[in-house]
Amino acid sequence: MITRRSFTRMASMSVAGTWLTGLVPERVTARSPVGISLQGLSANARRLDDRMKTLATFGANDDGGIDRVAFSDANVEALDWCSGYLRDAGFSVERDVVGNLVARKAGSDSSLRPIMFGSHIDSVPGGGNYDGQVGSMGAMEVASVLADAGHITRHPLEIVYFTNEEGGKTGSRALVGEVEAFELDIETASGFTIGEGLRRLGGDPDRLNAARRAPGTLAAFLELHVEQGAVLDEDEVDIGVVEGIVGIMRWNVVVDGMTNHAGTTPMDRRQDAMVGAARFVTAAHRVARDTPGRQVATVGRLEAEPGAPNVIPGRVRMTLEIRDLSMEGIERTFETIRARAGDIAEGTGVRFSFDRFYISRAAPTDEVIRGVIQRSATARGLSSMRMPSGAGHDAQSMALLCPVGMIFVPSVRGISHAPEERTESDDIVNGTNVLLDTLLALDESGTT
Amino acid sequence: MITRRSFTRMASMSVAGTWLTGLVPERVTARSPVGISLQGLSANARRLDDRMKTLATFGANDDGGIDRVAFSDANVEALDWCSGYLRDAGFSVERDVVGNLVARKAGSDSSLRPIMFGSHIDSVPGGGNYDGQVGSMGAMEVASVLADAGHITRHPLEIVYFTNEEGGKTGSRALVGEVEAFELDIETASGFTIGEGLRRLGGDPDRLNAARRAPGTLAAFLELHVEQGAVLDEDEVDIGVVEGIVGIMRWNVVVDGMTNHAGTTPMDRRQDAMVGAARFVTAAHRVARDTPGRQVATVGRLEAEPGAPNVIPGRVRMTLEIRDLSMEGIERTFETIRARAGDIAEGTGVRFSFDRFYISRAAPTDEVIRGVIQRSATARGLSSMRMPSGAGHDAQSMALLCPVGMIFVPSVRGISHAPEERTESDDIVNGTNVLLDTLLALDESGTT
Repeated sequence: MITRRSFTRMASMSVAGTWLTGLVPERVTARSPVGISLQGLSANARRLDDRMKTLATFGANDDGGIDRVAFSDANVEALDWCSGYLRDAGFSVERDVVGNLVARKAGSDSSLRPIMFGSHIDSVPGGGNYDGQVGSMGAMEVASVLADAGHITRHPLEIVYFTNEEGGKTGSRALVGEVEAFELDIETASGFTIGEGLRRLGGDPDRLNAARRAPGTLAAFLELHVEQGAVLDEDEVDIGVVEGIVGIMRWNVVVDGMTNHAGTTPMDRRQDAMVGAARFVTAAHRVARDTPGRQVATVGRLEAEPGAPNVIPGRVRMTLEIRDLSMEGIERTFETIRARAGDIAEGTGVRFSFDRFYISRAAPTDEVIRGVIQRSATARGLSSMRMPSGAGHDAQSMALLCPVGMIFVPSVRGISHAPEERTESDDIVNGTNVLLDTLLALDESGTT
Repeated sequence: MITRRSFTRMASMSVAGTWLTGLVPERVTARSPVGISLQGLSANARRLDDRMKTLATFGANDDGGIDRVAFSDANVEALDWCSGYLRDAGFSVERDVVGNLVARKAGSDSSLRPIMFGSHIDSVPGGGNYDGQVGSMGAMEVASVLADAGHITRHPLEIVYFTNEEGGKTGSRALVGEVEAFELDIETASGFTIGEGLRRLGGDPDRLNAARRAPGTLAAFLELHVEQGAVLDEDEVDIGVVEGIVGIMRWNVVVDGMTNHAGTTPMDRRQDAMVGAARFVTAAHRVARDTPGRQVATVGRLEAEPGAPNVIPGRVRMTLEIRDLSMEGIERTFETIRARAGDIAEGTGVRFSFDRFYISRAAPTDEVIRGVIQRSATARGLSSMRMPSGAGHDAQSMALLCPVGMIFVPSVRGISHAPEERTESDDIVNGTNVLLDTLLALDESGTT
């Protein structure tokens, strides 16, 4: 693995056309033998940086972050601002019925299906300037680079800025027909309901079905995004090749013991729900940590009843969350943890009960696209690693429609959904170049 | 050990003057070689039961329990009712400046110091009919038995019903000068402040110092009480010989880790405060359970921050309580637990901090009196065991003034401070007989 420390030197060499690794051909060809297209095109770092800064003015707050929540004035105005640059790059811009900004440009072969790429520009309340925005400005930069070079792709292109990613992935879920009628009445952080908000973005909540795309009608979907975790930053890796968006299941776990006086009940006569819960937390952590795989298990909330210093808790309520790249993996991890709970119950006299209250489907990315992303990074002299996306993304829905690829760039210290969220400008340029190269490689190698 | 199952038969035999165990002389003597006085006196079970029932009418609530909180009308009226029977038994009844009911009867040797015995008749809000009341009616029964028999003790006797035991042991703490001025302004469950309440009981909050007793001015203090735990009931033991009232220390324990996204942070990169806290709870439980001794350790409250199912907790706040018969024992247990916390911190990357916020002094009972209580029980054909009192009692303050003895009788299923609190009538009679015999033994054997 090439670490980021070595990046600066190597990147400048790659700009000069010198390639270092054995995997990459020395000469730039229109169609490389490893499936990497090298048109000699690269992101314009200054333009990209300027657009990131300008976008950050829409909904800027006093904390240095943004309040560009979906459907807010800032959201509407920022989309309009984006439209201008996309039109400048030769794209026709429209809104679909769910308010997604969709920019289209024809390819040279009209028999091919479109390649879609993009992200979202809405934020959480009090959010930062990188989540969604890096991918959106990266996609815009790709459009501008292609326009500047006069490069016409074989496939039609579609750039998408999805509606309300942070508030429920409304835009992408509408493409697969998953938005339910009741959601339209949900009041969002903007003060508008989702239904009202869709109209504000030029959509039509009464015709949601018109947003649906049929599976197989897109050649691929690509998304560049900040990691929102600290793995790339801590390990000094430039590019994350996302293996998939993890699935999530959550349970309410109740531990029933016996409430008792903490003074008058000897240690060997207790059915202490807190002790049972504590052993459960430790067991869940160990199972997830020690089993081979990328699964994670978290107990984020715990409440003891009655909750007084001098009373042995008779009941503990806690949450268990498990994430993994496959739903079967989640089930396996859960069954192992539940078996441990059975052992704990036997040893301590408490009882465990589990109530699953949340499921989010896992969405693996396409293995071919993963390879293309990784080779594109290597060809740019960038280090890369395969990793799951622990957070949810629009790509999750898109995986139901077409092969999906996701590119991660480092989040400084893993901070996300906060004004302190940050990704270095160099990393944004790197990610954009990998997006560009991946797009061109798919465009050239793809037969559909 | 003689179990309670065999009690009924044996008790009837003892009433008939037949003694079963080797420890007890076959003939009743005025002063037995084992220090047990057997005057042939016993509690009148029906009278005792009737008085328990009548007392239960003062402040009775619809749940079958009582709301005879300190200073309430029911408290005042019940004390007046008690005074009548104590006067009938030849005692002069008065209230001291802290509202304690103090009933005095001269002994045959005016050079001897008084033996004091009694308990309290106030309850917690929504309390039961046995906590404090068994000892109060037991003491009254002892007075009546002595009066009926015309038996004059050598020592002067003082029966005491302490003020506001449940709300802070005001009455007994005043005897050792521990009630502080600010406490008088505390509003109690009665709606009156403690200061106002003392006046309602005939006391004078401006002269609290007058309540003080000088150490060494009492020969002994005895209290009969319900266990408030389940040990005697579960083990079918009739009488608990209390080794002392445990000391208590409480700490706020803070575990600091690193708040992080539960999806994007792999298991091996977490500093999960919940996992650190869970291992701490388990360690504290094991240290207290596995170290020889009667210590108990309890984590009764735990809060994780931020407390969401999808966020790795960065901070956990919890309470640790340790009780033991000696303060040194508590310190030893705490240091062992703290050392374990150090190991956990090293293993998990979290940090622990401890802030002690509560101390209650341990009060050992007198070893000579323990022996007398145990032999008294045996002489009555009752099983007994030595045990700590995990709950606080007025005897805690009294231990600063004189040798103290406490007698426990079983609490059905250990329930306390609830309408379901119960002690069987037979057990109340047993405890009263042991109180009577212990008092007489001390009176006869005591040289002071």
